[in-house]
Amino acid sequence: MAKNITPRGVNFSEWYQDVIKAGELADHSPVKGCMVIRPDGYAIWEQMQAKLDRRFKELGHVNAYFPLLIPESFITKEAEHVEGFAPELALVTHAGGKELEERLAIRPTSETIIGHMYAKWVQSYRDLPVLINQWANVMRWELRTRMFLRTTEFLWQEGHTAHETYDEAQEETLKMLEVYRWFLEDICAIPVIAGAKPEHEKFPGALTTYAVEAMMQDGKALQSATSHNLGQNFAKAFEILFLDRDNQQQHCWTTSWGSTTRMIGALIMTHGDDDGVIIPPRLAPTQVVIVGLWKNEAEKVGVVAHVEAIRAEIAKVLDPLKIKLDLRDNLRPGDRFFTWIQKGVPLRIEVGPKDVENEAGLSVRRDERTKEAISLGQMAQRVPQLLEEIQANLYAKALAYRAQKTQKIDDYQTFKTFMDGEGGFALAHWDGTKETADKIQEETKATIRVLLPIEGEESGVCMISGKPSKRRVIFSKAY
Amino acid sequence: MAKNITPRGVNFSEWYQDVIKAGELADHSPVKGCMVIRPDGYAIWEQMQAKLDRRFKELGHVNAYFPLLIPESFITKEAEHVEGFAPELALVTHAGGKELEERLAIRPTSETIIGHMYAKWVQSYRDLPVLINQWANVMRWELRTRMFLRTTEFLWQEGHTAHETYDEAQEETLKMLEVYRWFLEDICAIPVIAGAKPEHEKFPGALTTYAVEAMMQDGKALQSATSHNLGQNFAKAFEILFLDRDNQQQHCWTTSWGSTTRMIGALIMTHGDDDGVIIPPRLAPTQVVIVGLWKNEAEKVGVVAHVEAIRAEIAKVLDPLKIKLDLRDNLRPGDRFFTWIQKGVPLRIEVGPKDVENEAGLSVRRDERTKEAISLGQMAQRVPQLLEEIQANLYAKALAYRAQKTQKIDDYQTFKTFMDGEGGFALAHWDGTKETADKIQEETKATIRVLLPIEGEESGVCMISGKPSKRRVIFSKAY
Repeated sequence: MAKNITPRGVNFSEWYQDVIKAGELADHSPVKGCMVIRPDGYAIWEQMQAKLDRRFKELGHVNAYFPLLIPESFITKEAEHVEGFAPELALVTHAGGKELEERLAIRPTSETIIGHMYAKWVQSYRDLPVLINQWANVMRWELRTRMFLRTTEFLWQEGHTAHETYDEAQEETLKMLEVYRWFLEDICAIPVIAGAKPEHEKFPGALTTYAVEAMMQDGKALQSATSHNLGQNFAKAFEILFLDRDNQQQHCWTTSWGSTTRMIGALIMTHGDDDGVIIPPRLAPTQVVIVGLWKNEAEKVGVVAHVEAIRAEIAKVLDPLKIKLDLRDNLRPGDRFFTWIQKGVPLRIEVGPKDVENEAGLSVRRDERTKEAISLGQMAQRVPQLLEEIQANLYAKALAYRAQKTQKIDDYQTFKTFMDGEGGFALAHWDGTKETADKIQEETKATIRVLLPIEGEESGVCMISGKPSKRRVIFSKAY
Repeated sequence: MAKNITPRGVNFSEWYQDVIKAGELADHSPVKGCMVIRPDGYAIWEQMQAKLDRRFKELGHVNAYFPLLIPESFITKEAEHVEGFAPELALVTHAGGKELEERLAIRPTSETIIGHMYAKWVQSYRDLPVLINQWANVMRWELRTRMFLRTTEFLWQEGHTAHETYDEAQEETLKMLEVYRWFLEDICAIPVIAGAKPEHEKFPGALTTYAVEAMMQDGKALQSATSHNLGQNFAKAFEILFLDRDNQQQHCWTTSWGSTTRMIGALIMTHGDDDGVIIPPRLAPTQVVIVGLWKNEAEKVGVVAHVEAIRAEIAKVLDPLKIKLDLRDNLRPGDRFFTWIQKGVPLRIEVGPKDVENEAGLSVRRDERTKEAISLGQMAQRVPQLLEEIQANLYAKALAYRAQKTQKIDDYQTFKTFMDGEGGFALAHWDGTKETADKIQEETKATIRVLLPIEGEESGVCMISGKPSKRRVIFSKAY
C-alpha cells in the first residue's frame, strides 16, 4: 500500500491529488489556478496529441495558428457567446509600457477570431469546406480549480470548420464526436456515452452541442470532449459569406469541436488504483520498463547484458522510445518497482541473475499485478499480447463499473436516494424544460449529461412534472 | 513571371510580403502585431517541430508545460533580465471580472517561472541534470513587426536545463548550438555561422549567448536560434540549490536555448525566388505533387489511374502524407502548376495522356525548373535522388551567395562603403568595447553578429580604435 497516497475509499479527491503528485504528472504553480504539467504528465498529452492529430489529418483537416489575444469587441459580437464567456475573461490592458486603446482578451476559445479570418478567406463554394484545427492554450478564469480538470489555463485542440449546408456541418459535428468516442474508448480505454446536450447546457452560440461523457470511479460524470454544430450564428456575426452554386450569397454553416488536457484527469480517475495511476498501453509513453536486479558487480554485468537483450527483442515489435530501462543502483528493488507503479507503466519486466541463467524475465502487470515468466525468445510475441490484454481489461473493468452504477429510475424519491448515496448515472425521463432541470440540480446536485438517442428508447413521463418525455436522459453529479 | 509578386531586385521587403501571401503561408490578424499562421505555413512549422523534437529527445530531453502568465515580481528578480524584458511586456490586470492584486505578464520567455519550479524539484545532485524543453507561444510587444521575423506573439521552443557544474552547463549550451546548426544546415539547407555574441548583445541574464547567423538574399543577417549559458544567475535569483557530492549546498548552473517560427522567415528569404518560396525537400510538408492533365473525360480516366500508379510507386519510398495529387479540373494547367510553384513544393510531376501511353511522368524541379521524363518503374529510385539533388543544390547556392557577399575588411572607409552598398558579412577586427560597436552601428547600421572562433584566426587591430583584437568578428546589417 502506497504511503504517499490516500486510499480512494477514504477520500477520492485527496486520492486524485496524491496520485498526480506521486506520479509526478503535474504540480501547482505560483500563478493562481494555473498548473505546471510535468514531463511525465506532458508525455501523456503528447501521446494524446499524436493519436488525435493523425486521425484529424486522415479526415482531411489541417492545422493552423491564430492569435492568443482577441479584441474584447469580437467576443461581444455573438450575443450568447459573450454572455457565456465574458465573466471568465483575462484581459490585457497594458502592453509595451502603455495602456491599450482596446482591451485584449486571452482567448477562452477562438470562434470569434477564426470567424473573422474565415470571412476574409472564403469567397465561393469552391473554398469550402474549410477544415482547420488548432493546438493551443486557452484561458478561462475559474474560481475553483482542480489539476487537469479545471484550471485557469489549459491546453487543447479546437477544430473549426465551415461548410456549404446545414447537413454537411451536422455530418462534420457527428463525425468528430465519433472521433472522440473512438479515441476515449479504443485508445484511452474509457467507456463513454455520446449524445446531445440539453438546450440549456449547450456551448454559448451553438445550435446543438454534443459531448462524450465518462463515469469516474466515484460515480461522477466527466464531460471529456465536445462537438458543436454552430449553425449560421457565427457566420452571421462575422459575415462569413460565400457565393453558392447558384451564384447566390449565403452564410456558411460552421462547427467547432474540442478536447483538452482534462482527458488526463479522466484517465487518472477511470483507471487509477490505490497505488497510483495506470496508463492504458495504447496511450502509454512508456509501455514497458525492464528493471535489472543484482547484488554485486559480478552479477550486474550479466544482468545488464540480459536487460539489453530483452529490450532488443521487444524493440522488434514496439517503438523503442516506449521501452525504458531501470538500471539504478542507489535504490532498493521495492522502491524501484514502486516508481514505475506510481507512474502507471502498464508492464514491468524484472530481470535478476536467475533470469539470466534461465534466459527469461518476469513480467508483472500493472493492472492485476499478475506475474508471468517469459523466455527471451517469447518476448516479442508475448509482450504485445500482454499489453493488449491489459488494454482490454482496463476497458472491461471501467465498463463493468459503469454498468453497475447505472440505473433506470422512474420516480423522484428513488432518484434522490440514488444521488444522495453512492451516485452514478440515472437514466430518467425529463420534460425537456430548464426549470425542471434546475430544480433537480438544486435538490440533488445532479445535472443532465446527455440525451440518449431517441432510437430504441421508450417514451415515458417526467419524474417531476409528469409531462410526456420522448426518451430518457442521463442524470449524474459531474466534474 | 509571377504577377502577384514584386521581384526581389525591385523591393526585397515587398517581395517577402508578396511571397508569403502568394504561398498562403500567413496572414495579418486584426490584433496589432499578431499574425495568423495559415495551414501551409503551419505545416512547415510542424515539420520543424518534428525534426527538432526528435533530436532533443535523442539527447535525453523531455517536454513539459509551464504557465503562460508570470507574476510581474518574478521578472524583476534577475536584474539584467527585467531591464531587457520589462519594456516589452503585455500585462493582464483584470480577470474574472475583477482587478488583480498583482499584474501578470504574458511570458516573454520562461526562465523565471521555470527557475521557480526547478528550485522546488531539485534537492540533490541525484536530481541533476534537469533537461526540459517547452513548445509554447510567447509575447514581446514589438513596435515594428514583420511576419514570421518579428511579431508580438510567436511560437517557439525553449529548452531549460540545470546542471551540477559550469562545465556541464557549457557543454549543454554548445551541444544545443550544434543541434541548431545541424537543423538549419542539414534540414533547412540554410548555411549558418555559429558563434558567441559580444557581451553587449547577450540575452538579459546570461553569462554567454551563442547564436547561429544566416545570410538572407539581401545580404542581411538573420539570427536564427540562440543558446545561452546562464551561469548561476537565475539559480541565485530563484534559489535553485542542490546538495552536491560532498554534501555541500550549491547553486545549479543553468542553460536555455530557443528557436522560433522566425526560422520560417529565414527559409523564405534564403531560398525564395521571384515566383515564390522554395521549401527544401527534407523539410517540405509536401515533397512531390503529381498533376494530372486531360482534355476530356475519356483521357481523364486513364490519367487519374496513372497518377495513382505513380503515387503508389513513390509511396514505397516516401511518406505517403508528403505526396499530393492535383486532379482539379476547374483551372488551366498553367494556373495549376503555379499554385505549387508558389507554395514551394520541390518536385512536380506532370502526367498527361502521352505519359499514360509511355508509362512515365514528367518531373519538374522547383529550384532549377529542369525537366526530366521518368518511367513508372524508375519513380521509386529517381524521385528520392532528385529530392536530394534539390536539397544539395539549395544549400550550395545559399553557401555560394554567402561566400560572394563575405569579405575581410581592415579599414573603416572600405567598411562603410561595403555597408552603404550591397552589404553582406564583413569580417573585421574590433577592440571588444560596446562604445566602438555602438559607433559603428550608428554610422553604418551594421552590428556584430557573432565572434569568430579564436582558433585559426589571425589577430589584428580594431579598424576604428586601432587597439589590439584577438580575432575577427562578423559585422552585418541584420533583421
